[in-house]
Amino acid sequence: MSETPIIRPVRSEDHAQWLTLWDGYNEFYGRVGATALKPEITAMTWARFFDGYEPMHALVAEQDGVLLGLVHYLYHRTTLALAPYCYLHDLFTTPASRGKGVGRALIEAVYAKAREARAARVYWLTHNTNATARVLYDKVAEESGFLVYRHPL
Amino acid sequence: MSETPIIRPVRSEDHAQWLTLWDGYNEFYGRVGATALKPEITAMTWARFFDGYEPMHALVAEQDGVLLGLVHYLYHRTTLALAPYCYLHDLFTTPASRGKGVGRALIEAVYAKAREARAARVYWLTHNTNATARVLYDKVAEESGFLVYRHPL
Amino acid sequence: MSETPIIRPVRSEDHAQWLTLWDGYNEFYGRVGATALKPEITAMTWARFFDGYEPMHALVAEQDGVLLGLVHYLYHRTTLALAPYCYLHDLFTTPASRGKGVGRALIEAVYAKAREARAARVYWLTHNTNATARVLYDKVAEESGFLVYRHPL
Amino acid sequence: MSETPIIRPVRSEDHAQWLTLWDGYNEFYGRVGATALKPEITAMTWARFFDGYEPMHALVAEQDGVLLGLVHYLYHRTTLALAPYCYLHDLFTTPASRGKGVGRALIEAVYAKAREARAARVYWLTHNTNATARVLYDKVAEESGFLVYRHPL
Repeated sequence: MSETPIIRPVRSEDHAQWLTLWDGYNEFYGRVGATALKPEITAMTWARFFDGYEPMHALVAEQDGVLLGLVHYLYHRTTLALAPYCYLHDLFTTPASRGKGVGRALIEAVYAKAREARAARVYWLTHNTNATARVLYDKVAEESGFLVYRHPL
Repeated sequence: MSETPIIRPVRSEDHAQWLTLWDGYNEFYGRVGATALKPEITAMTWARFFDGYEPMHALVAEQDGVLLGLVHYLYHRTTLALAPYCYLHDLFTTPASRGKGVGRALIEAVYAKAREARAARVYWLTHNTNATARVLYDKVAEESGFLVYRHPL
Repeated sequence: MSETPIIRPVRSEDHAQWLTLWDGYNEFYGRVGATALKPEITAMTWARFFDGYEPMHALVAEQDGVLLGLVHYLYHRTTLALAPYCYLHDLFTTPASRGKGVGRALIEAVYAKAREARAARVYWLTHNTNATARVLYDKVAEESGFLVYRHPL
Repeated sequence: MSETPIIRPVRSEDHAQWLTLWDGYNEFYGRVGATALKPEITAMTWARFFDGYEPMHALVAEQDGVLLGLVHYLYHRTTLALAPYCYLHDLFTTPASRGKGVGRALIEAVYAKAREARAARVYWLTHNTNATARVLYDKVAEESGFLVYRHPL
């Protein structure tokens, strides 16, 4: 058994395992049961990872054929740089694999990808009550002091 | 003299007035003097507003030929919807025009545009210390409880 | 009854009439019956016209509530210009409305939109046997001498 | 000395050699001297190859550290498929390396990349007088019978 997971782009054959992770992530944010993400959104998001026109990507952490975590990120424009920003959209690791550096490895893999893609910045959002995750985030990034306002349409 | 400003897409001939607003906005966030935004970034951002391939737009508030405010927004993908999200990137009004509904009108104009563009959500970031602006934001949107972590590359 | 059709962006309520035109267009190119375009492609294409992230657009020619023609266009990058190219992807008018300037009005409306979007060029493809259409095309554009090679994946 | 060139994505350190190839390609199409491509276009195109938001890419053929050819390609939407089309924009090999399969290897590398990116089709344009290139193109793709009309703005 390998000591540490490898971080690599998601592949077609990962679909079933990725879906389990994705469902776990969505459940954490309350998107389960009556408020679950619609299956057509999940299908479209999965398709976009493989669509060369879409600047949206997924990496997974794999150990001995088992997926332990996922990270999704995308590039978008900013008015403040020539280069794009990289938005780390989703991060999730299985409960059993927590505290072993998997989340950190996923974030750092996004840093490496975003550097290759000449992005000016990697950023993400987290709920202010997400204390466990924030212990990690405070080690690898800066809490900017910015809050998110939103308005559904 | 008209009572209320009109909100409209920015035009080529607005460049000089837009630049004054843009500089004011950047100064508010400390991007002035040694830390000013590079002129080539401002030039590129301006060009992107008019480039049909770039999903980045600018509206201005105009009253009797004078620009009182600007708002910049862009669309990007999300893993959580078929439709894009609308990121309201920058909002600024001249000191003299504050408290008169200009900021609110600019935000609501973005809501209207984003609805036409079938976006799922409009969102923006603001610093937690930006108390004055937050009075308005709390009226027109929801403070989500999400914080921004970031990492420069 | 109005003399000439108006050219305007497609709207949600045009769907049924647009679909008839789209089917007519596809039939012209042999995409009918067993080789018809899949309904999910048509649904996606329709959705993309209204999606603010997608640089794909549709105009229609309308006369007294009746759609006489459609044109679809999109912007994409080029290695040869800072600005995007505008690809006029599809053009169709009803058989009854031909020879009345509807096709020409649709093409010229794309020129106007593409100019606003600062595109460097509008271009399109037509089959070398499409003699009727080429009479019009030779009046409004230049036959470039370039041929299209293609390879399905 | 290696027998065959390797085909790989372009890298920062290739800039000088890539520029020589790019100039040769542009000269072939008459973009030289008074009609040369502006340096800022070349600079932007180069930057776009490395920008993770731009769906534009470059591959080069390298043999023992020497670049023998380039190919540029990009993805764009189509109304006729869910997946994007891959437009093979530019192809060039040094005069000395012609007739040795370099052009074919570059085209086939684009096919492989476009397949990974789930594109529905790879296509390109060539002038009808480009007889030498068409001998190769007729082997690896289909001459579609479509002609290109264009209109500068």
